[in-house]
Amino acid sequence: MIAERLVQGDRAALSKAITLIESKLERHHADAQYLLSEVQRTSPSVNKSFKIGISGAPGVGKSSFIDRFGRLLTSQGLRVAVIAVDPSSHRSGGSVLGDKTRMAELMRDQNAFIRPSPSACFLGGVTANAFETLSLCECAGYDVIIVETVGVGQSETQIVDLADMVLLLVAPGGGDDLQGIKRGIMEIADLVVVNKADGDMMAQARTTSRQYMSALHFMVPQSPNWTPRVLLSSVHSEEMINGVWHKICQFRDTMTKTNELQEKRERQRRTWMWKQVHEELVSRLYHDEDVVAEIDRLQEKVTRAEMSPRVAADHILHTYSMRYVSHLKSKTGLQEGPQT
Amino acid sequence: MIAERLVQGDRAALSKAITLIESKLERHHADAQYLLSEVQRTSPSVNKSFKIGISGAPGVGKSSFIDRFGRLLTSQGLRVAVIAVDPSSHRSGGSVLGDKTRMAELMRDQNAFIRPSPSACFLGGVTANAFETLSLCECAGYDVIIVETVGVGQSETQIVDLADMVLLLVAPGGGDDLQGIKRGIMEIADLVVVNKADGDMMAQARTTSRQYMSALHFMVPQSPNWTPRVLLSSVHSEEMINGVWHKICQFRDTMTKTNELQEKRERQRRTWMWKQVHEELVSRLYHDEDVVAEIDRLQEKVTRAEMSPRVAADHILHTYSMRYVSHLKSKTGLQEGPQT
Repeated sequence: MIAERLVQGDRAALSKAITLIESKLERHHADAQYLLSEVQRTSPSVNKSFKIGISGAPGVGKSSFIDRFGRLLTSQGLRVAVIAVDPSSHRSGGSVLGDKTRMAELMRDQNAFIRPSPSACFLGGVTANAFETLSLCECAGYDVIIVETVGVGQSETQIVDLADMVLLLVAPGGGDDLQGIKRGIMEIADLVVVNKADGDMMAQARTTSRQYMSALHFMVPQSPNWTPRVLLSSVHSEEMINGVWHKICQFRDTMTKTNELQEKRERQRRTWMWKQVHEELVSRLYHDEDVVAEIDRLQEKVTRAEMSPRVAADHILHTYSMRYVSHLKSKTGLQEGPQT
Repeated sequence: MIAERLVQGDRAALSKAITLIESKLERHHADAQYLLSEVQRTSPSVNKSFKIGISGAPGVGKSSFIDRFGRLLTSQGLRVAVIAVDPSSHRSGGSVLGDKTRMAELMRDQNAFIRPSPSACFLGGVTANAFETLSLCECAGYDVIIVETVGVGQSETQIVDLADMVLLLVAPGGGDDLQGIKRGIMEIADLVVVNKADGDMMAQARTTSRQYMSALHFMVPQSPNWTPRVLLSSVHSEEMINGVWHKICQFRDTMTKTNELQEKRERQRRTWMWKQVHEELVSRLYHDEDVVAEIDRLQEKVTRAEMSPRVAADHILHTYSMRYVSHLKSKTGLQEGPQT
């Protein structure tokens, strides 16, 4: 029922579905899995959304850029979903007051869906559900999905495993400000947009643009068919915002034509699967108190160089295996040795 | 016996010990673990070596730089070990003819130990033994350990988990050549050395140096107490080689004084322990043919977007758990149900 409404593009159903897959409650797990399978099976829009990761430090004007950019897209008849990953957000019922006001105009647009996601459950740890959230938006028929992240933490480098394209938003500023860029983000950016390029800031924006161009020169391009560009933008210039969208379309078309887009998506799906396998395997280590106590003890010894990392790793794995057997024994009714 | 001789600084014993820990044979495993514990317990030089990772693309002159640099150190009474990680090396008995000739003069030095290591077993996969190899060199009393890697593959970013300092060696060259730099290596470099800064190349070397300085400007420094520098060097200039060593000592002293060096080493030991735990957990998935077949089947479905990554991950983990139980049953003599 919720799956059906979601596939028809119902925003409330999409919202509920995201809340369900975000749930950490064991009893919601099977429902979430079923829902995911169901929407994927029935939606005509699987693999059709274009996903743009927009990253930038606090203060560069991400929200107002997305507000304007999103409205440009909806004005062209496109449906736009925005997932805002805010590491500091205190969620209550799936909405953050701040986000509502930050993208005020886009919020009122019937063809836009805005969802704040706490980064903890979106990109980090075993319960990460970024991939599934985007899948749901895609199945709900959104043509463009924007994932907004702030330039801190690990989220920056994870975005490359989620988005079709990574856009780095920066503000005009002196050389020192540039140092605030998250390690690694420059290397995964397909497009750098120098925001606030208007009025008094124009000259500074041009300088910043040149600096980024020269920095990009040092990066190995991610694709043999695309050289990352630097564009100027301003929320006061429809022409500039249009220019950004034009460049994004150019990227999308090039990547589609060369089949790189399809290959990237296939790779992302496999990466996401393995990520979840790895994280679950490691998290199982922590299910048993004895193993946790042993890990603490060994880690302490390794830190103090009293034991080699390899020897400690062997111990941890051994303890885990032993405890895992007894855990499974109690769960499955296995018994030790023949009981004749 | 081998442990004792190694701790006394015997090069043949060190060589044998490295071969032992590199061995993939099950029967060598316990011996290797014992040896590691033993040398760590008895050596007076634990935590005393300074470990320098030297990275650079093929052709920048790494070997001749290390040859000259190493001899400078031995001439000051220091003992130097060089671990050359060569991804293309075909080892036979622990030596590569190419390496012997590449560092011809250092090879003849009684205070130097040169060991080529195939990258496959040094830095990659479950059997990675880079950390242990360095530990053995340290316990054998080498004051400076140089890890040489070529600027390809994952080795570049792993070096940061091994070395106390990362030095990036580059050759003079136009802007286009700079693009050959491995993604990520610029960001972890504590020092960039523009090699071959002599004769006709001098002007070009200065230009390259300026380009790197401007590129470094875009990187977030790894330490609050150290800004990465760019130096010129040439094998024909003792003064320049001296300048590099001087800068390295400055880095070492700063990191020691601020306690960052100790903290980094503690972090590296823990990281290495976890790396081995993670890799072993994942490799266990592949011990069972049925699980491997299931993984292949599911991965194919995920690639074709016929199954969500999360659902596939759940299936893989479930199959693995089931097979793991039966594996342990056969190994430990556990039986199903009470057998009365």
